[in-house]
Amino acid sequence: MKKVSISFKVLLPATVIAIFFLFSCQTGIKENQNSYAEDRALIEDLQARYMFALDNDDLDTYILTFTEDGILDIGEGEWKGRDFIKNLLSSMPQEEPAVADSGLHRTTGRHNISNIVLKIEGDTAWGRAYWFHMSNENPQRKPQLNSYGHYEDEMVKVDGEWLFSKRKIYNEEIAKWAAPEGNPSW
Amino acid sequence: MKKVSISFKVLLPATVIAIFFLFSCQTGIKENQNSYAEDRALIEDLQARYMFALDNDDLDTYILTFTEDGILDIGEGEWKGRDFIKNLLSSMPQEEPAVADSGLHRTTGRHNISNIVLKIEGDTAWGRAYWFHMSNENPQRKPQLNSYGHYEDEMVKVDGEWLFSKRKIYNEEIAKWAAPEGNPSW
Amino acid sequence: MKKVSISFKVLLPATVIAIFFLFSCQTGIKENQNSYAEDRALIEDLQARYMFALDNDDLDTYILTFTEDGILDIGEGEWKGRDFIKNLLSSMPQEEPAVADSGLHRTTGRHNISNIVLKIEGDTAWGRAYWFHMSNENPQRKPQLNSYGHYEDEMVKVDGEWLFSKRKIYNEEIAKWAAPEGNPSW
Repeated sequence: MKKVSISFKVLLPATVIAIFFLFSCQTGIKENQNSYAEDRALIEDLQARYMFALDNDDLDTYILTFTEDGILDIGEGEWKGRDFIKNLLSSMPQEEPAVADSGLHRTTGRHNISNIVLKIEGDTAWGRAYWFHMSNENPQRKPQLNSYGHYEDEMVKVDGEWLFSKRKIYNEEIAKWAAPEGNPSW
Repeated sequence: MKKVSISFKVLLPATVIAIFFLFSCQTGIKENQNSYAEDRALIEDLQARYMFALDNDDLDTYILTFTEDGILDIGEGEWKGRDFIKNLLSSMPQEEPAVADSGLHRTTGRHNISNIVLKIEGDTAWGRAYWFHMSNENPQRKPQLNSYGHYEDEMVKVDGEWLFSKRKIYNEEIAKWAAPEGNPSW
Repeated sequence: MKKVSISFKVLLPATVIAIFFLFSCQTGIKENQNSYAEDRALIEDLQARYMFALDNDDLDTYILTFTEDGILDIGEGEWKGRDFIKNLLSSMPQEEPAVADSGLHRTTGRHNISNIVLKIEGDTAWGRAYWFHMSNENPQRKPQLNSYGHYEDEMVKVDGEWLFSKRKIYNEEIAKWAAPEGNPSW
């Protein structure tokens, strides 16, 4: 009996302390996994993969950067849902001249993102960023800036993966797509 | 008496172990909060917010990216303190032509940051980065590169927020603002 | 005897719990140090330091961004090893006109990286990113876009430091250096 009694007296405080530290450690790990840096790193990767898919006509990958019911707004109203966005984009005319016509190597277009501002709360994030586009549709295949603007994004974390729930694109070249005055960031 | 004696013998080693693990865990959390990634993420956000404020005439937000006695040096000596910087910048002539004059939508200018190099020690950071500026002050509102250069930054963490304690700007367009030869990074 | 016996009974479970939490905490710390954010932050810094060294004729620093037997492939086959790469690059003709010839301040060239996509597994990473180059070789020292392309990188972590084990550069200006069709990212 005595032996059992002592063991219990030993185990009880040890267990209390154990549970306390279990929570302490778990909190430490959790803060790590949900840290600003961790989320920002994943979102930066998302933003970059979006560009690669967009510029390389990889619509299947592009569309997977949005949530199932994600919204794309290029200034023509809200296009909602992966299928809807994909159908609209795939029906757009390709501007690139055929390689066969020129005798030169194919032309390319490149969207670049910069100045990424991110506010993150739990599984939701709000982003602001600049974009600018260059292409080389000339006989020298020399890069030319074509257009620029900024993004206003909403993103959500779904099953550990950050996705666009809404991307609103402003384009300073076209009057109806240009941003209003004022700082869209914070 | 015996009961107390045993409890004490139980609690003493348990407490010693507890304190040991408390420090272990705290260190883990602390390393997370002060990690290179965490600080770099916050500084990247600072750098991006600076650009949005600068390009959108949001001087109040712009000035808050500096410490109270922060220094801005665009090549004309050191401008020290939020109030001083704000007064100087707000007295500068605006280059943008009035929208009314052209009949077109307003023009915009965009500073972009790239190639951010960061060395961080505790609450102090040293940064190097490229910048380039584009605007669309032409009837087609087509982007044009105007100038580029690099930043040499010193930043400090004040109450958990990274701020510029000094930003020195080099501009390769203007002889007196251009950087000397040699790698300013490491 | 009894005293010792109790102490042992106290210490045994406490030690078991201690070891359990030691591993818990260590895991937390380890996950922090090897987190995606932490590795991505270090790799972004590497990518930026590479650019500063490249554009500022700092070959010694440039070459240290590669592993000892790292590979550089600009489209002319694989150049392997720090010494080999350095010798090839240092023998290349400098395109910049002499400052003395123009009476103007020296010209500069700037490589910028954007859209960094990174997949990281342990001490190995795979990267995709855009690059574009601007310079100011004209009497006005105005920036001009010269060329752009993308990187396909393999990186390894050696003694805690990320380095390029292989960098393959595509350049869309020159036919034989241009990338094939398709999304090189994921």
